Amino acid sequence: MGMKTLKVIKIGGNIIDNEAALKSFIKNFSTIKGPKILVHGGGKLATQLAIKMNISVNMNKGRRITDANTLDIITMVYAGKINKTIVAQLQANNCNAVGFSGADGNTIVSVKRPINSIDYGFVGDVVNVNTEILELLLKNTITPVFCAITHDKSGQLLNTNADTIASELAIGFANQFKTELYYCFEKNGVLKNVNDDNSVVKKINTQTYKILIDEGTISGGMLPKLNNCFYAITNNVTKVCIGKPEMLFIKNTQFTTIRK
Amino acid sequence: MGMKTLKVIKIGGNIIDNEAALKSFIKNFSTIKGPKILVHGGGKLATQLAIKMNISVNMNKGRRITDANTLDIITMVYAGKINKTIVAQLQANNCNAVGFSGADGNTIVSVKRPINSIDYGFVGDVVNVNTEILELLLKNTITPVFCAITHDKSGQLLNTNADTIASELAIGFANQFKTELYYCFEKNGVLKNVNDDNSVVKKINTQTYKILIDEGTISGGMLPKLNNCFYAITNNVTKVCIGKPEMLFIKNTQFTTIRK
Repeated sequence: MGMKTLKVIKIGGNIIDNEAALKSFIKNFSTIKGPKILVHGGGKLATQLAIKMNISVNMNKGRRITDANTLDIITMVYAGKINKTIVAQLQANNCNAVGFSGADGNTIVSVKRPINSIDYGFVGDVVNVNTEILELLLKNTITPVFCAITHDKSGQLLNTNADTIASELAIGFANQFKTELYYCFEKNGVLKNVNDDNSVVKKINTQTYKILIDEGTISGGMLPKLNNCFYAITNNVTKVCIGKPEMLFIKNTQFTTIRK
Repeated sequence: MGMKTLKVIKIGGNIIDNEAALKSFIKNFSTIKGPKILVHGGGKLATQLAIKMNISVNMNKGRRITDANTLDIITMVYAGKINKTIVAQLQANNCNAVGFSGADGNTIVSVKRPINSIDYGFVGDVVNVNTEILELLLKNTITPVFCAITHDKSGQLLNTNADTIASELAIGFANQFKTELYYCFEKNGVLKNVNDDNSVVKKINTQTYKILIDEGTISGGMLPKLNNCFYAITNNVTKVCIGKPEMLFIKNTQFTTIRK
């Protein structure tokens, strides 16, 4: 009883790549009352910069590899351009914010993904979230803004999935807050029919999740996203939702809620 | 009586551009006891990136102009690559650090330099330093690491001189700490003979400063640097020193001290 609610909100490329959409989102986000954390992905900017710099995108069996050049680009684009643009726009909307990578404040420690069949390069799997500094800021009505970069505590920055960072942060705060995790993306949620944005599956639990996978409704990129959702909801996160950012601001918007 | 000492330390290109020098500096910096703030310049990386991206360096009467493309590059390199590399290496040395631009925590507000004879583009002149969040971090033994970017509180990031950021931070804390400001660069200090690194002017005050300018000992790029020093020392900063980073770590190192 009496635990405050913390909202952890993740936005992706569909908002970040569109200047007007980002401005509008930030304006709305700034009106959210109470403690909140924003996590952002990278969008197309990193790929565009790699092309401009004639750095080839390294693929192995269809998966992108983060070599040293790619890590540099990601660090420049995610922690530099995108993170600071978002923080400056939040300040313009009187939402006091501080940008973070996982290295800042030693907030998110990861290990370089072990090389099995594929060497993913400088990709980090989260092992530890340190919330002390973030708590301090949240208590002082400051909003942490996370880019998808972590570190290994030995000086190495590591590219880390933004959905995972959002779920790990939500889980990390679950003993101090009622944490709510919101994944904003381009669709209204998990769709029964991928071509019909009104065919939203309103609620998914562990049982129906299995069925939706078996019948092929959930596949491809939605699988890791939903795995993150269930990872969070089974680790004391109070509420997990997937949908368009409107789900946060407009009543009666359709979206998908994840339950245990 | 009883005021703690805060060290504000600025490093420039000669350290940032040299991987071994940066590692060594960070190792030493991490051993400094008590509250400290690190301010870093940009080094050659931004120019190198501009060349790789075929973005021309815009000059007007010999001064570099920060157009929109240049601001993007600076934001990526300073706030992204350099700032996060430094923070990750500090963490590796058990110095808990958080990276900042002036937009983060609304810590440094500036105005876009007015257009007189030259339009410098997206360059900011500092108008306000907000220390509250930084105090909070310093009290919790966390070291803020500043890149040379500020904002106008209306969403615009602005390129700002790193020496100025260091002096403004030192001045901003002067009513709460005994603030000491250290400008680290490639020489032992202000030199009587520019070709003799042992010809250090050990102390300069307002009177001798005038003489050194008149006789041509201080000229060119040293002028704005020393103006920053005197701006700080005449605004309640306790101590201002210029020299090699060794002045911070090794006894009997030569350097220049600025007095009122």
